[in-house]
Amino acid sequence: MERLLIGITGGSGSGKTTLAAALKERFEPEELLLISLDSYYRDRSDLSLEERRKLNYDHPDAFDQPLLVEHLGRLRQGESVAQPVYDYTQHLRGGTLAIHPAPVILVEGILTLALPQVRELFDLKIYVDTPADLRILRRLKRDVEDRGRTVDSVTAQYLTTVRPMHEAHIEPTKELADLIVPGSRDTYGALWTLESWVRAGVDGLRPSFPRPDGAPLA
Amino acid sequence: MERLLIGITGGSGSGKTTLAAALKERFEPEELLLISLDSYYRDRSDLSLEERRKLNYDHPDAFDQPLLVEHLGRLRQGESVAQPVYDYTQHLRGGTLAIHPAPVILVEGILTLALPQVRELFDLKIYVDTPADLRILRRLKRDVEDRGRTVDSVTAQYLTTVRPMHEAHIEPTKELADLIVPGSRDTYGALWTLESWVRAGVDGLRPSFPRPDGAPLA
Repeated sequence: MERLLIGITGGSGSGKTTLAAALKERFEPEELLLISLDSYYRDRSDLSLEERRKLNYDHPDAFDQPLLVEHLGRLRQGESVAQPVYDYTQHLRGGTLAIHPAPVILVEGILTLALPQVRELFDLKIYVDTPADLRILRRLKRDVEDRGRTVDSVTAQYLTTVRPMHEAHIEPTKELADLIVPGSRDTYGALWTLESWVRAGVDGLRPSFPRPDGAPLA
Repeated sequence: MERLLIGITGGSGSGKTTLAAALKERFEPEELLLISLDSYYRDRSDLSLEERRKLNYDHPDAFDQPLLVEHLGRLRQGESVAQPVYDYTQHLRGGTLAIHPAPVILVEGILTLALPQVRELFDLKIYVDTPADLRILRRLKRDVEDRGRTVDSVTAQYLTTVRPMHEAHIEPTKELADLIVPGSRDTYGALWTLESWVRAGVDGLRPSFPRPDGAPLA
């Protein structure tokens, strides 16, 4: 039985991580494996800390696509992998963590659908769509209250990097998704539906109809 | 075990009927009941045919909301109902059809989420979101090729009724949906997911977590 891969994406502050975590909570570790795309930031130990701080972490090139593709392929085959543990303070890989396969594998992150070779592996693609004002408010709260940053510093980063990268690389992946989850209110119905999909996948159920060759149904 | 209700909506030409029919095809009649909102056009036999032809059939008031609410309530209780059969040539009810309950009941139509008392009955609300140009092209093809109408006549109806009613009454229901299905390409992933939800519902499975009181998750 082929293992299933599901990708969940959305902008910063969209609620994608909350949705993925809520879904994860409903299953045992041996049923659903949750992978954060952030674990696959590229290894840039060739640069100084100062240089690494200036990198654009909201661009698809910030991610080690070949390594993630290799790991997803091996997990799908039932093998364990040594996942990098990313150290945000040093902007470096700080060791590895042994990750074990599960019948359903969920990859979550802002650019999950923006990496073409990763994207084509997914059996189901989800985009959490939340208005930009709600997203920046959530990000501000997190960065100011939890991470001790100033409103000015968060605003500057938002305007110079987060926002243009969202428009260029995240928002365009919305139309590649199979389902869009409105992220401006409770996601109970979406979670219920995704729980059914994952449960069916864990139980080895597969759809009773063939995948079309990209042709519209109508 | 409470029966489940799912509503599928979207504009004219969005692919909502195709999606609902494709879902229906994957289940037995005793598992999934498909109801077309069109069956619940109001009985306006008090008007002449000429007057009935001039009515706005794209407005929520065109539908017999109390009858549909009553029927859904009775179906949910396990009772059969006598569903009106709508005669489009006469714009009249032309008899009734006996409809029997199923564990999952699917209501499909352009204003399915625009009728408040109907909307609040749904356990899951789906909006098929298709760009307006693709929708009018599909409608034109159907009305010109299949129904023998002229491009001018379809265009006039679209501009005077269909488009303004879409903007006023259908598009706003998108943000009330639990899930949005992009209707511009194949809906395989959406169908797979909805099939899992319906199958779980038929099998009597319910979510393992409580419904929030409308509060956002984040």
